Amino acid sequence: MKLTIERAALLKALGHVQSVVERRNTIPILSNILLSADGDTLSFSATDLDMEIIDEGLAQIDVPGQITAPAHTLYEIVRKLPDGSDVSLSFNGDDPRLVIQTGRSRFNLPVLPAGDFPVMSNEGLSGRIAVDVNELMRLIDKTRFAISTEETRYYLNGLYLHTVNEGGETKLRAVATDGHRLALAEMPAPEGSAGLPGVIVPRKTIAEARRLLEDAGEQIDLQVSPQKVRFEFGRAALTSKVIDGSFPDYMRVIPKDNAKILTLDNDLFAKAVDRVATISAEKSRSVKLAIEPGRITLTVRNMEAGQAVEEVEVDYDGEPFEIGFNARYLLDVCGQIAGPQAEFRFADPASPTLVVDPVDPGVKYVLMPLRV
Amino acid sequence: MKLTIERAALLKALGHVQSVVERRNTIPILSNILLSADGDTLSFSATDLDMEIIDEGLAQIDVPGQITAPAHTLYEIVRKLPDGSDVSLSFNGDDPRLVIQTGRSRFNLPVLPAGDFPVMSNEGLSGRIAVDVNELMRLIDKTRFAISTEETRYYLNGLYLHTVNEGGETKLRAVATDGHRLALAEMPAPEGSAGLPGVIVPRKTIAEARRLLEDAGEQIDLQVSPQKVRFEFGRAALTSKVIDGSFPDYMRVIPKDNAKILTLDNDLFAKAVDRVATISAEKSRSVKLAIEPGRITLTVRNMEAGQAVEEVEVDYDGEPFEIGFNARYLLDVCGQIAGPQAEFRFADPASPTLVVDPVDPGVKYVLMPLRV
Repeated sequence: MKLTIERAALLKALGHVQSVVERRNTIPILSNILLSADGDTLSFSATDLDMEIIDEGLAQIDVPGQITAPAHTLYEIVRKLPDGSDVSLSFNGDDPRLVIQTGRSRFNLPVLPAGDFPVMSNEGLSGRIAVDVNELMRLIDKTRFAISTEETRYYLNGLYLHTVNEGGETKLRAVATDGHRLALAEMPAPEGSAGLPGVIVPRKTIAEARRLLEDAGEQIDLQVSPQKVRFEFGRAALTSKVIDGSFPDYMRVIPKDNAKILTLDNDLFAKAVDRVATISAEKSRSVKLAIEPGRITLTVRNMEAGQAVEEVEVDYDGEPFEIGFNARYLLDVCGQIAGPQAEFRFADPASPTLVVDPVDPGVKYVLMPLRV
Repeated sequence: MKLTIERAALLKALGHVQSVVERRNTIPILSNILLSADGDTLSFSATDLDMEIIDEGLAQIDVPGQITAPAHTLYEIVRKLPDGSDVSLSFNGDDPRLVIQTGRSRFNLPVLPAGDFPVMSNEGLSGRIAVDVNELMRLIDKTRFAISTEETRYYLNGLYLHTVNEGGETKLRAVATDGHRLALAEMPAPEGSAGLPGVIVPRKTIAEARRLLEDAGEQIDLQVSPQKVRFEFGRAALTSKVIDGSFPDYMRVIPKDNAKILTLDNDLFAKAVDRVATISAEKSRSVKLAIEPGRITLTVRNMEAGQAVEEVEVDYDGEPFEIGFNARYLLDVCGQIAGPQAEFRFADPASPTLVVDPVDPGVKYVLMPLRV
């Protein structure tokens, strides 16, 4: 293998793929990326066995070939090379190392055979579905915070991506929950997506896909099978296993008839929650909301750290009642509200509360109350 | 105690003093700050028993008094209060808690008696010496990186601040070393500083003083005794114990007759060092410099990670030789060079190397070579 590539193209492609590679690996080749030089293209492939990212860049290939080299070291070296330089990569049998050369810099990196590099099959994936990049970013951004990190309920460790048909309209919907709160965001179903299998996309895959979406154009291609999901971003592509489990019947959790409706200034409320949370005990972070016509009083009491009370004006004219929430979860939801106001729909102090964004009917949040 | 103070004044003073307070304390009152309201001034005092920072702000005092309250919680609350608000602080015997109130926010914090708060004496300190703020910041910035973190040689865990008389000129000099490298910076001795006892100012004190210097005017007042140092920054003041030990005779380490003189482009050299260090083993980080007329060749060899070679053009016309350094230490020194070039003065591969900055004769760096 022998080729020359612009440092910028090399850095961009390495940047796209290298973050999949775990820092510590028991299988040595998983620390490497696969470089494949052919035609006028250098391809890059990285995997953690659950997910694979490939990308490519234009290069001047003198001798085609394949080899694997340490992903993070290669990325670090290229990152530190002077902007605007041309980088030559070469590997031949005489020196069993990859040689990286530019200007007066020369690096030799240990390699492992390309034939040993695990490749993920694309078998069984659906046809390509074109998805709007901004819409997909919105789906991810509005929901990923609620993905569970508890390993015992592994089927909650991802974003549930699926299509639904409600009122004659088909939608692509993302749902995440950790059992304490739930986030739902949806968009009009892209052409060809109706009837696709619903998949639970793992947290790490969502993070990588989100990162690659930043560099994508207006549309990406999505493919799904019951076992896998594949995102194609122009040159780069991410293929990932999905979580093998059933996502719970979340619709049962989303309240439909909550009758106590309250509207408030989202920013003022979030700041008040943040202030009273200063003195909440680190674990429970419980804040009590005393709701009465025109006003919420937020209270946190903590034996050690004292007490905090805040009042916020709200639009509410129902009966007074008290309800408790985890301050962190309240702040997470407030952070997703796009408009100036948030609408809370309560049933009673022991039942799930629905939070909606008056300017975005495509999102819903559910918060389980705490006992206060 | 009962008073009103602008949130901005409160935040600034709390910001100055609170960072001294350790996150965990076995003595509860050390988690608190002392608030003293008298006349038209609210004073703040925080201590870790080795160091004390005081500051003050203008306030409208209705009832003078003193109390202590949790430093970090109070700071966090004030930080989160709306910009431009007036904050009322009150404490009376009826409710044994400090009440913080502004707008519709009300916080109660637990207190401890002001009489139990440890106060540091200023006994034995010299008269005030006016020191230029920019000069003092320079002394700290150029040297603090070399302060040792090894606890066994506790007398190296600080910056040695002292006056010297060389060639009829008196200078205030700061020296730090960890036994592997040494940094020295000096300035014309401020009036009244000649003959002051040399003091080893602890690392944490240096960090706090540097932070406070950012907000200081053009001059601060310095006072010294064999046991203590005191910096006065207008309203704020920092008093600290100094390290009870003898700083080594560092002049013996600074080479005077190193005859192999080499000048190089500091930025190009630092970038080359940084690149080859990418594949150095994490602990030794050893880089070999092969020096010959007109050129340095930098080499790092690492059994696992491969090999890196860089060439840098230099101004040198002596005999060729090889010498090794810790890449991190080389980069630290390069980072302090203010001009475009650095000058290295070598003796031989086993002796200390002197690095000077051609545009700043007031700094000197010494690097111990590694065996390569």
